[in-house]
Amino acid sequence: MEVKARAPGKIILSGEHAVVHGSTAVAASIDLYTYATISFPIAENDDSLKLQLKDVALEFSWPIGRIKEALSNLGAPSSSTPTSCSIESVKSISALVDEQNIPEAKIALASGVSAFLWLYTSIRGFKSATVVVTSDLPLGSGLGSSASFCVALSAALLALSDSVNVDAQHQGWSMFGEPDLELLNNWAFEGEKIIHGKPSGIDNTVSTYGNMIKFRSGNLTRITSKMPLKMLVTNTKVGRNTKALVAGVSERTLRHPNAMSFVFNAVDSISNDLANIILSPAPDDVSITEKEEKLEELMEMNQGLLQCMGVSHASIETVLRTTLKYKLASKLTGAGGGGCVLTLLPTLLSGTVVDKVIAELESCGFQCLIARIGGNGVEICIGGSS
Amino acid sequence: MEVKARAPGKIILSGEHAVVHGSTAVAASIDLYTYATISFPIAENDDSLKLQLKDVALEFSWPIGRIKEALSNLGAPSSSTPTSCSIESVKSISALVDEQNIPEAKIALASGVSAFLWLYTSIRGFKSATVVVTSDLPLGSGLGSSASFCVALSAALLALSDSVNVDAQHQGWSMFGEPDLELLNNWAFEGEKIIHGKPSGIDNTVSTYGNMIKFRSGNLTRITSKMPLKMLVTNTKVGRNTKALVAGVSERTLRHPNAMSFVFNAVDSISNDLANIILSPAPDDVSITEKEEKLEELMEMNQGLLQCMGVSHASIETVLRTTLKYKLASKLTGAGGGGCVLTLLPTLLSGTVVDKVIAELESCGFQCLIARIGGNGVEICIGGSS
Repeated sequence: MEVKARAPGKIILSGEHAVVHGSTAVAASIDLYTYATISFPIAENDDSLKLQLKDVALEFSWPIGRIKEALSNLGAPSSSTPTSCSIESVKSISALVDEQNIPEAKIALASGVSAFLWLYTSIRGFKSATVVVTSDLPLGSGLGSSASFCVALSAALLALSDSVNVDAQHQGWSMFGEPDLELLNNWAFEGEKIIHGKPSGIDNTVSTYGNMIKFRSGNLTRITSKMPLKMLVTNTKVGRNTKALVAGVSERTLRHPNAMSFVFNAVDSISNDLANIILSPAPDDVSITEKEEKLEELMEMNQGLLQCMGVSHASIETVLRTTLKYKLASKLTGAGGGGCVLTLLPTLLSGTVVDKVIAELESCGFQCLIARIGGNGVEICIGGSS
Repeated sequence: MEVKARAPGKIILSGEHAVVHGSTAVAASIDLYTYATISFPIAENDDSLKLQLKDVALEFSWPIGRIKEALSNLGAPSSSTPTSCSIESVKSISALVDEQNIPEAKIALASGVSAFLWLYTSIRGFKSATVVVTSDLPLGSGLGSSASFCVALSAALLALSDSVNVDAQHQGWSMFGEPDLELLNNWAFEGEKIIHGKPSGIDNTVSTYGNMIKFRSGNLTRITSKMPLKMLVTNTKVGRNTKALVAGVSERTLRHPNAMSFVFNAVDSISNDLANIILSPAPDDVSITEKEEKLEELMEMNQGLLQCMGVSHASIETVLRTTLKYKLASKLTGAGGGGCVLTLLPTLLSGTVVDKVIAELESCGFQCLIARIGGNGVEICIGGSS
């Protein structure tokens, strides 16, 4: 038996940082996925739980007895009731992870492995299986890789439970029903909490439901794009300290409260203008091109305001300059200070230009991904040949 | 007899473009000057008016009789009453300029020559002399070269009239008294009108009075800096179309009125914060460094907002990236789209670093000037050996 789930990554189209100060932000799913495959039974006499993180070449294996022993206080799994990992359980799980001796260079992944153990044992209990995870998403670059990991995992685990309805006869990828998505999203959020402490819930929500989300002051509104949208996502590979960047903006806001308050209000307007453009229908190529030009202008404006907040970086500027040569508009996405940059790829842009831009960006040492924006959320495939 | 005047150029410290939409801007004089020297009598039997523009290698010579003939309607000069050049006089003066056959490549200077003829004949009448003009300022790059030309010229001409008081015994450069400055500024403004059509009056006012000026909605307030301030002025040498840039900002404002209104308000706050920092006393090195850091932050913020308005340029971004490598803050000054970029040079910055930055910028083909900010306005030197 094999169950495979895939969950998309996300980008922030507008409003990062300003959202912390009350502005509207818009996030969207991208068609770059994390895949989680659960297979069982595994080899005879092998009563263990195995996790393979293919992209980072890590393999873990725990005897089921050892997991039971460590998490004896958990009781029977209750897949229909998402529960937070208690401090006590976090400690027990950490011990299980520590035993696996993750190499120092990959130690940042330990919290993800903890989230896996929590979701697995809480939803499926103490059963043996092999879980294989692969991803199109670069890790820790602001594209929601950890959320898509939690969502894909929760989806595959819940598909094996009685708590959600899946059509085992359906060939290929299929979507979940609305109540199932809510359950799944809540479980994924519990995983995100183990990885991030206090996640906003935006990443797992976008990964679960797909399409786009407008959010402001903790309120999420799902919106459905009326236009196809393609972005070049350039990963500068420059690591950044999100907390320090967020704190830097707050400090600047304390020093210049009036100016920064106007800046956040400007971002709020831009997010709303952007959502309105995306939500309005575009009946033909001409109106799609017009809408794309408006989006490009809003991206340029948002990028200027992010620079005003002090969260840009030399690597981001290099991407901006390079894409500007081809008259393409770009903005950083996420925390800034490195990370990823979005470049709108207009519908009528020739493939030759795209190839040239990518070649030039890659020659700077950046990683380029092309992503369609606002597609489906998490999907499941039973039988697992897709 | 020789009279020499020098008048400083200007930079906009904050608020360019936004000032058109009601925000406060701050401009300051720089210690880069245009010099105008009037010598007479010239050679015997040479009854002509000569103008030498040394930096652009242009020489003009008009027989006084020809000027009298062309401008017969002017009547006696009245140096104490600044008067606008009538449309009729503009035509007559243009004819005098045309006769001099300015090479096509330098035709943009024709309006400056017209302004010279208007100021000279209006203030000094139909008398022979040789006027030599030199300048530290690159032409047409937003550093107020035309205003400093008009101010220096008006100063030298007025010093020879009965309308201002100058101490002929004073050695070296000396300043004018307050009422004389007002007269001089008004004359210079008449010259600026011939060159620019509808000048704001900011450039000639800064060049006349020196120091700094805060302006908003047509109101100019002179302010006196309490701190020494040194800037690297990088001339990208990229020509720009100021009118098109101003129009571009207005069009963006029509498309996104809310967002842009917040952006202009943010700039207004930044200009006021900047003026307050400059106006507050700094008793020691520590507080000067603190103030410089605050100014750097405000420059970075203003630059981000200018990018948001869409008036940056690849050449400006190159300067920003280069100076950022040395942890120096920069912003465009003036219209943008090329032109000049300011980089604050902190008091405690080592000369070695300054040399390195300049070398790197010059290797990009840019011209670098170092300027002290907020010094004296127009000054005069009688006898002319300074």
